[in-house]
Amino acid sequence: MSNPNPIFIPGPTNIPERLRRAMDVASRDHRAPDFVDLIRPVFENLKPVFGTSAGQVVLFPATGTGGWEAAITNTLSPGDTVLAARHGMFSQRWIDLCRRHGLDMRVFEAPWGEGVPVEAFAKALAADTDHRIKAVLATHNETATGVRSDIAAVRQALTVADHPALLCVDGVSSIGSLDFRMDEWGVDLAVAGSQKGFMLPAGLAIVGVSPKARAAMETATCPRAFFDMRDMMAANAAGSFPYTPSVPLLCGLRESLAMLAEEGREAVHARHHRIAEGVRRAVAAWGLSLCARRPALYSDTVTAILVPDGYDAGALVAHAYTRYGVPFGIGLGDVAGTVFRIGHLGQMTDVMALSGLATAEMAMVDLGYPITLGSGVAAAQAYYRETAAHAVPAAAAA
Amino acid sequence: MSNPNPIFIPGPTNIPERLRRAMDVASRDHRAPDFVDLIRPVFENLKPVFGTSAGQVVLFPATGTGGWEAAITNTLSPGDTVLAARHGMFSQRWIDLCRRHGLDMRVFEAPWGEGVPVEAFAKALAADTDHRIKAVLATHNETATGVRSDIAAVRQALTVADHPALLCVDGVSSIGSLDFRMDEWGVDLAVAGSQKGFMLPAGLAIVGVSPKARAAMETATCPRAFFDMRDMMAANAAGSFPYTPSVPLLCGLRESLAMLAEEGREAVHARHHRIAEGVRRAVAAWGLSLCARRPALYSDTVTAILVPDGYDAGALVAHAYTRYGVPFGIGLGDVAGTVFRIGHLGQMTDVMALSGLATAEMAMVDLGYPITLGSGVAAAQAYYRETAAHAVPAAAAA
Amino acid sequence: MSNPNPIFIPGPTNIPERLRRAMDVASRDHRAPDFVDLIRPVFENLKPVFGTSAGQVVLFPATGTGGWEAAITNTLSPGDTVLAARHGMFSQRWIDLCRRHGLDMRVFEAPWGEGVPVEAFAKALAADTDHRIKAVLATHNETATGVRSDIAAVRQALTVADHPALLCVDGVSSIGSLDFRMDEWGVDLAVAGSQKGFMLPAGLAIVGVSPKARAAMETATCPRAFFDMRDMMAANAAGSFPYTPSVPLLCGLRESLAMLAEEGREAVHARHHRIAEGVRRAVAAWGLSLCARRPALYSDTVTAILVPDGYDAGALVAHAYTRYGVPFGIGLGDVAGTVFRIGHLGQMTDVMALSGLATAEMAMVDLGYPITLGSGVAAAQAYYRETAAHAVPAAAAA
Amino acid sequence: MSNPNPIFIPGPTNIPERLRRAMDVASRDHRAPDFVDLIRPVFENLKPVFGTSAGQVVLFPATGTGGWEAAITNTLSPGDTVLAARHGMFSQRWIDLCRRHGLDMRVFEAPWGEGVPVEAFAKALAADTDHRIKAVLATHNETATGVRSDIAAVRQALTVADHPALLCVDGVSSIGSLDFRMDEWGVDLAVAGSQKGFMLPAGLAIVGVSPKARAAMETATCPRAFFDMRDMMAANAAGSFPYTPSVPLLCGLRESLAMLAEEGREAVHARHHRIAEGVRRAVAAWGLSLCARRPALYSDTVTAILVPDGYDAGALVAHAYTRYGVPFGIGLGDVAGTVFRIGHLGQMTDVMALSGLATAEMAMVDLGYPITLGSGVAAAQAYYRETAAHAVPAAAAA
Repeated sequence: MSNPNPIFIPGPTNIPERLRRAMDVASRDHRAPDFVDLIRPVFENLKPVFGTSAGQVVLFPATGTGGWEAAITNTLSPGDTVLAARHGMFSQRWIDLCRRHGLDMRVFEAPWGEGVPVEAFAKALAADTDHRIKAVLATHNETATGVRSDIAAVRQALTVADHPALLCVDGVSSIGSLDFRMDEWGVDLAVAGSQKGFMLPAGLAIVGVSPKARAAMETATCPRAFFDMRDMMAANAAGSFPYTPSVPLLCGLRESLAMLAEEGREAVHARHHRIAEGVRRAVAAWGLSLCARRPALYSDTVTAILVPDGYDAGALVAHAYTRYGVPFGIGLGDVAGTVFRIGHLGQMTDVMALSGLATAEMAMVDLGYPITLGSGVAAAQAYYRETAAHAVPAAAAA
Repeated sequence: MSNPNPIFIPGPTNIPERLRRAMDVASRDHRAPDFVDLIRPVFENLKPVFGTSAGQVVLFPATGTGGWEAAITNTLSPGDTVLAARHGMFSQRWIDLCRRHGLDMRVFEAPWGEGVPVEAFAKALAADTDHRIKAVLATHNETATGVRSDIAAVRQALTVADHPALLCVDGVSSIGSLDFRMDEWGVDLAVAGSQKGFMLPAGLAIVGVSPKARAAMETATCPRAFFDMRDMMAANAAGSFPYTPSVPLLCGLRESLAMLAEEGREAVHARHHRIAEGVRRAVAAWGLSLCARRPALYSDTVTAILVPDGYDAGALVAHAYTRYGVPFGIGLGDVAGTVFRIGHLGQMTDVMALSGLATAEMAMVDLGYPITLGSGVAAAQAYYRETAAHAVPAAAAA
Repeated sequence: MSNPNPIFIPGPTNIPERLRRAMDVASRDHRAPDFVDLIRPVFENLKPVFGTSAGQVVLFPATGTGGWEAAITNTLSPGDTVLAARHGMFSQRWIDLCRRHGLDMRVFEAPWGEGVPVEAFAKALAADTDHRIKAVLATHNETATGVRSDIAAVRQALTVADHPALLCVDGVSSIGSLDFRMDEWGVDLAVAGSQKGFMLPAGLAIVGVSPKARAAMETATCPRAFFDMRDMMAANAAGSFPYTPSVPLLCGLRESLAMLAEEGREAVHARHHRIAEGVRRAVAAWGLSLCARRPALYSDTVTAILVPDGYDAGALVAHAYTRYGVPFGIGLGDVAGTVFRIGHLGQMTDVMALSGLATAEMAMVDLGYPITLGSGVAAAQAYYRETAAHAVPAAAAA
Repeated sequence: MSNPNPIFIPGPTNIPERLRRAMDVASRDHRAPDFVDLIRPVFENLKPVFGTSAGQVVLFPATGTGGWEAAITNTLSPGDTVLAARHGMFSQRWIDLCRRHGLDMRVFEAPWGEGVPVEAFAKALAADTDHRIKAVLATHNETATGVRSDIAAVRQALTVADHPALLCVDGVSSIGSLDFRMDEWGVDLAVAGSQKGFMLPAGLAIVGVSPKARAAMETATCPRAFFDMRDMMAANAAGSFPYTPSVPLLCGLRESLAMLAEEGREAVHARHHRIAEGVRRAVAAWGLSLCARRPALYSDTVTAILVPDGYDAGALVAHAYTRYGVPFGIGLGDVAGTVFRIGHLGQMTDVMALSGLATAEMAMVDLGYPITLGSGVAAAQAYYRETAAHAVPAAAAA
């Protein structure tokens, strides 16, 4: 018998039926005169999700990694100094990608479980009086550690230092799920991907671009062609793409944006918070700790949980998958083996979350963890009960 | 946000992805010479699911109710005496249908929660020395009460009485999920439907026909046309249907039969038992009782649960649906208001079942039931843990 | 390589992408309180397609044959006299079905290729002064011969004779595609099916019921249970069905009705006429004749073509299917072997029709027909060019 | 009414039903231990389609343009000399891309309608005795002009000159449809895309890599990160990807490769040739000329047709789309306005091709072209009839 269980990895998410259907389309001519009727609303409707009206949003047939590359190669030049922090697998990878493109990375090491070291950044920016730093990288939501950083504070550091560096934010696992305010926070490049808050398969890098970032493209000299944003923006303005787009993903994104708009952005954020908080209540009931070091850092899209000393988180994830057919996220990089992750972004209901928690409990007990069956579930149930104001009948899935 | 929760009604079931895909087909010519290549294996592969090699299985574009009608109108004549028991909503409806077709129903009343009253049947059959009783109706699995009856015992009663009546069995919510032995039990007409153990949408009445039932068609005089089995069998033998079939459902059924065969019938039955037993452990932990009066009657496809005195089971089901987006089965007929039902047939995993149990707990606590959150979940978890020998990775869903 | 050619059988039709997607849905609880939100608009939106505001439309999980049975068993009694004409395979089958239900059929034989013999009906009705005739059957569009009959004229005959018989119309291959005016024509029972003008798979009998027909149910004594319309109407009024409905087909029908409404009924009829007329131009260019004996009878949903003497139409259809992968309709019954049929109802464009005509030409030439390649195509092209006022870009398929 | 006509653009192609279904999948964990079971056969089964056993094939979530970039940035260094020819829009774009990455392009101009100028290449290679040329670019099938070049001859030129340059081939619109022999022709980098011969949506760059190309990666210094092949190959070898892959496209590619293998590569090539030749017969019957200058250059995947003097090919394409809902390919770059293109790759049957030809005829006559309706269709019909040895029943589409 095949296995219909939900998945609890922090992306790709459980794809809603409605998006499955929206993507199941025949080929159409991407050079036809009415193709613009498909894509123009997509570009418009992406803006509020990024929190921008001044900027624009571009799409690449790639992944979030491609979005990182597009962001930096279009706006920076080899040898440029870039400020960044390494506090998780994805911040680490972006740093590595920048180095490969010849950027001079000034990297702050932070504990995995901490957020962007805003104070260190502030000092570095204040000290950089000749503005050698051309860009600041910040990972809004570290998918590896379940840590959400304070992007407004990073902007504040730039403002205080009166520093002109571009602010480049990895919002791959936040945009579409968590509050994101590109204009208000002065984000110049915001990178998202289709397979997270947009609830689609991987395949689209979605990048918000501020007017300042757009201007930086005129002088940036990093080589780029596939990821050239000026080509992309010029084609988009004409209702097309520089190369063949994925029609299914565009149709899916159109529908995803419709779903987010119908629910309302604040309701989407509140829903993610509610689901996440239930998961955290369960973790507390288990007597376990989060990788994120304090509540201000808690991510509402993914929860990274420290396993007790002497246990192997990787074995736990493998066991849950093999025994119960439920995927959780393994620990990556510095926290491999010590954390497992519950992804709860996108179309995740309280009912689905409870099934994930119940599974995690069974798997932990199977492996000898000092956990009481039902304990985490009960804690989450109590929270979900109290907060179940916004019910949605099953039929709405259609 | 739309709602992707599983459903816990006793049919239609949660349709597996694989069957969703199998049904998503273009139209094809049902009179084309190669259409037989689609349908012939379907007819062949249905036989082992019904437990017959001597009989054959026919398909009507209808529902289980249509299957009941086909079974009796093709083999009986107005005025014929038919033995039956009323012990649930579906046995009651079949009796009503028979009456509309002019049959003389001799009905035993049994408590809802009891099975077919085999002893009463045995006495009636023994007393019917001139064989006025032409058919015996038995509901293998009463979907309304979660009661599985002993069809072998009914056959035994016929055998002991040396009685020639046809044995007509409603297997709508058992065939495909529970052990069913048409030949061994001497079942003459066995009625199933696509939306239960076959995990498809409603739309196919699936009827097993013994050679004796086939012979009875030659003399039966109940009017029938749409449901005429001789027309149907003749057309089927020629590789066609007397009228336009549903190609999507035939393609779905082909795939459903493949899934059942790949898993193995015994494994399918064992899986249903395991899931059901976990649900029953939860009910016990809640301190509640089943509608089914004793373990021998417990159904492995649906569990009907008595709510405590003073509570309204209908309100519970409505609340779970409205608040949490999870459908359970309401009580029907004589048990309306006093039972709610958890359907757990078809593609139901332990993980899904736990989400249903967790939801039922929240809903009961919301409505003031004396239930402890997590209690039923923990009892089911304990059982599922112990019995989780046959794990299936999520990927197998493809 | 699989074969994506259109089909040219007169139902099931080529299913539009939009309906394929609409039907690809998960199970939902058909007893849930919001199920009515799905079905109520379906019932309302069916009415204008049937041309009724006084009547109502009911749905059975069956086929058109089931619709015939529902129409007559709910409104007539065994022994009732029914007036009918046999002028094609489907009128013949309905007569046979009536006989099986004990009706006294008074049948006029008409040539296959002629319509309902209105004058003969008029005489019979005028002569029936004691109103023994309880119902008149008329096949609006004989799918076997491509003949559309004049239902308004049948009503006129009833009116002139001041005859109270019910007017029962088989609109299976007309309703949804051709102009149908249930109220204006005084049709009491109008039978349609999902797999024709509604462009869905088979599986729904769709029956329009006039108030007079509804009243007749109170006294009709033909046995019925699965097809009992009073049960069905009572359940529908309460937002449900007496037994499990097919959610995919209901969702598909909802979308089909939306498509028909968006295009506009008159535009739908005009489109069918345009496509059909192009096909007829091709037939004329081939030097062949239609089965339908004169233009007033020409059907806009299916064209039945007489093959030249000495040729076997069945072999032609088999050859086109085997050699080119294109299904046409074979001749049925009295015209088996002498006609082949091109179905052009539902989602059929001029471009698709041309591919069918081009295929028919190749197949005929292959088999030695005296046909010039391209001749019929050119005639149809000329007509389609002149009439191609209402173009639809391919992208609208989404 | 929506529009179900086939499309005749040279990619994306008409997606087969079977691939539509294969791609309609739920999310799964790309880090799970059994993910390798999905991807390993894909990688293996790609090799014969590329004609390689010595090389390997990698997949990027990108398009053919991304494949070009991956090919050159992984194997070349800024300042390297690269030999190329500009004889169509896609060869021109690859040259432009190379320049952006700092390569020193030595470009031969050839007429659009000619193939790769092998003799000029041969001379240049022979003259390059100090091996400054590091790579030779060749466009196997120029999608803009319908020209297939002789890659074996390019290899021969390298061999004669005993030149070590890498041979990089754009096979985007050939691989999977036309004969391609990576090993035999000594191709070092072969670029394909999912939306052409693989019949999928855009979204995968598929690149064949020879051992020599693999070795070149160790010294190449063009910056790359997203497109880094060493990272990709290392991850693939471990059963994973360096970033989130598109599960639907991988499932689709698995099925596409199964389809190609079932049909057989030679049969696939022969089928493309047959369809293309019918189209060319039609063009000749119209009295028009191909952009490709002589038969040896004719492409079997796309036919570029020169419109008569005084006509605007772009207007023709727009008219066919707007009036008949059929997309053809416009002329690009130097041949914009003077050619229109009929794409006939992937799942294109003779019947579909005839509908495209019939549409082109109507559109041309609408715009005053001196064309006789039916003429091209008849010529193609005659050819298709003669060559219709391998028929496929429609049902095989399932």
